[in-house]
Amino acid sequence: MRIIDIIRKKRDGVELGREELAMVVEGYTRGEVPDYQVAAFLMAVCFQSLTDSELADLTELYVQSGTSVDLSDLRTAKIDKHSTGGVGDKTSLVLAPLVAAAGYAVPMISGRGLGHTGGTLDKLESIPGFNTRLTIDQFKETVRSTGCAMIGQTEELVPADRKIYALRDATGTVESIPLISASIMSKKLAEGVDALLLDVKIGSGAFMKKQTDARRLAHSMVMIGRRMGKRVMALLTDMDQPLGNAIGNALEVMEAVETLKGKGPADLTELCLELAARMITLADPERGIEGTREQARTLLADGSALKKFRQIIQAQGGDPEIVEAYDRLPTASEVYAMKSPRAGYVARIDAEVMGTAAMLLGAGRELIDSAIDPAVGIVVERKVGEQVQFDEPLCTLYYNDNARLKDAIEAVEEAFRISNAAPETRPLIYEIIQ
Amino acid sequence: MRIIDIIRKKRDGVELGREELAMVVEGYTRGEVPDYQVAAFLMAVCFQSLTDSELADLTELYVQSGTSVDLSDLRTAKIDKHSTGGVGDKTSLVLAPLVAAAGYAVPMISGRGLGHTGGTLDKLESIPGFNTRLTIDQFKETVRSTGCAMIGQTEELVPADRKIYALRDATGTVESIPLISASIMSKKLAEGVDALLLDVKIGSGAFMKKQTDARRLAHSMVMIGRRMGKRVMALLTDMDQPLGNAIGNALEVMEAVETLKGKGPADLTELCLELAARMITLADPERGIEGTREQARTLLADGSALKKFRQIIQAQGGDPEIVEAYDRLPTASEVYAMKSPRAGYVARIDAEVMGTAAMLLGAGRELIDSAIDPAVGIVVERKVGEQVQFDEPLCTLYYNDNARLKDAIEAVEEAFRISNAAPETRPLIYEIIQ
Repeated sequence: MRIIDIIRKKRDGVELGREELAMVVEGYTRGEVPDYQVAAFLMAVCFQSLTDSELADLTELYVQSGTSVDLSDLRTAKIDKHSTGGVGDKTSLVLAPLVAAAGYAVPMISGRGLGHTGGTLDKLESIPGFNTRLTIDQFKETVRSTGCAMIGQTEELVPADRKIYALRDATGTVESIPLISASIMSKKLAEGVDALLLDVKIGSGAFMKKQTDARRLAHSMVMIGRRMGKRVMALLTDMDQPLGNAIGNALEVMEAVETLKGKGPADLTELCLELAARMITLADPERGIEGTREQARTLLADGSALKKFRQIIQAQGGDPEIVEAYDRLPTASEVYAMKSPRAGYVARIDAEVMGTAAMLLGAGRELIDSAIDPAVGIVVERKVGEQVQFDEPLCTLYYNDNARLKDAIEAVEEAFRISNAAPETRPLIYEIIQ
Repeated sequence: MRIIDIIRKKRDGVELGREELAMVVEGYTRGEVPDYQVAAFLMAVCFQSLTDSELADLTELYVQSGTSVDLSDLRTAKIDKHSTGGVGDKTSLVLAPLVAAAGYAVPMISGRGLGHTGGTLDKLESIPGFNTRLTIDQFKETVRSTGCAMIGQTEELVPADRKIYALRDATGTVESIPLISASIMSKKLAEGVDALLLDVKIGSGAFMKKQTDARRLAHSMVMIGRRMGKRVMALLTDMDQPLGNAIGNALEVMEAVETLKGKGPADLTELCLELAARMITLADPERGIEGTREQARTLLADGSALKKFRQIIQAQGGDPEIVEAYDRLPTASEVYAMKSPRAGYVARIDAEVMGTAAMLLGAGRELIDSAIDPAVGIVVERKVGEQVQFDEPLCTLYYNDNARLKDAIEAVEEAFRISNAAPETRPLIYEIIQ
């Protein structure tokens, strides 16, 4: 079997065996198969998709292309959460300490923001001193001692996915649901977790705009996890307006800390409690969901989750005092309040446009290597469904560079829609897929 | 517009403009666009096809990537024929002198054989001294002085097609009808012809096994030619059994000469006369088809076509005496007669298997750089529909290397099917598409 025959089979819709997929993945990772053949293969996958069996094999080959984190000596159940990304999504900063405070291990490997979406690593790095670049050994040690560690991708983990992702990015083959699934799942399965909760976002600010696509992605990832012997569940959740109020790295850290103190925005708090309860019952299937929700609520109320966040910050070299003194976080020098042009109800806050506005202020990256400003961002003052009077603030822009303000204002003005009648409410959680 | 956006548009079925296609074709030819992006683009074309407008633009961009043969100073109408290839297809060797003898110019750029199919260049080069590697200037001069010249591809003509064809060959993107059409038509249109007759073969020995695919290819090529202001017609013709009796280079030259003398096999003669009449009426639309068929027949009968073939051979440095003395052509040292295992009718002679058998004897190339033996090949002694007695010869194998005989015999035994009843006759010409 030659690579050209494997490409032809996939092009013609014939199912590939594990050995054939291995020739592509291992050959490419070793530099033996040329990128033009893999590019043609990936485009054929965009049209012919992958069967469940092919997808499970592909994901496993990705994982096996590098080293995996081995936490098998840890007797605690190990659980992580993955979000497909959105605007104002700081749930990881709340969930990781909350679930660790409940006694479970949370080995979390996260990414950076790109375009209108934020990234957990960028948020954590707005905490002075916080080091997201631990080695695999330091990562394991921190999970053992603290119950949680939060780092970025390393060179050793899933090199096949890294190389193939770069090729997909250059060849118009990113938007394939099986390829997205394999990429996400391989990275998470290499963390050494027993169980994984997937938060698949839907709406303007999400990668998947439509519920049908999000559902397909969720089913695909749950299938892979199950085939690889992991407990996996997916929640389809709303990302049509920003989650919580804050968008921007230090601003989101503050909001996450407020949420850990039980004083966070209603939508963010509710979603975090539900995700935490789901994570815990996935990690520990003996437990009932109701009691677990209660426990999660208690861990916020009694300060345990906040205390765990302080421990995590300390363990990774950050300044734990930020949880009490927000002025120790980077702060923007200028503030602009965007006022409502009329009285009415907030009918829509387009999450993608809000994310882009925050990016324009410097909170996010236009290109993969753009620098970001951790202090800047936007705080939404009225969420969808709330009433607003003429000239009352809809949102506040925190900025450092005056030259960036004009475009950002134009974007937020475009993002908000005010109507006479209260809009229909969208659910926070649409579906559970398991 | 970036290349990645062009790939995405094609992937999503959006029609591309000429400028976008130019970015791909010109960028790749100049080495500025990487092969992995072009590979992804080509695979997307395999699934999304090309619109008529895209296909015409692509073909024109191929042509414009190199120099074209300029024969505009020649007042005679210029016409060529292209066959999609088959087994025993020596029509070019008959048609070129026949149409030139009728007073039209035939600038013919041909290819070599690969796999089970033969190539006009290989056949011509079995004539001692025949030079198919003329420069473009020599080519033009020979067309002017002789009315015809027959050469191979040169570096200057359609470099974009050459580079993209090599990439298609490595990426499983050869079997796309629009890409095949653009490749064929660009090469032919770069010859400087006014009109082009396409002989699209159907059946076991053809590239297109099914009539529907052949029809699509024919329509596609006719459309391109018309958009580029040329008179183009396609004939769908049979290639289920070998054409004529001879398969193998010098053997086919002899059969072509016999046909030019009016003594060729019935099917080959009939097809050549029809193709010649169609070429002439395409070149000279004022003429009627009936009178033209008559003229073609006369040009064979009175020796004019044969005389023209002698002139062409002489003009290109070959030995014109071969047309009378076949022993001046390469001759195989050994002969093997394959006898019929029973009495009956020849029900089938699988052209692909016969072509492969000839290749195994050394008449064709297994790989693009394999050496060939011009002397060897096969002569079919009984064609489909003919009766045969037990132990009478079905075909004769001409060979030089004893080691190659066994596999070839096995193949020819597999190719022939003998039945009790006469088989249904297949037409020689299925359809005319214009």
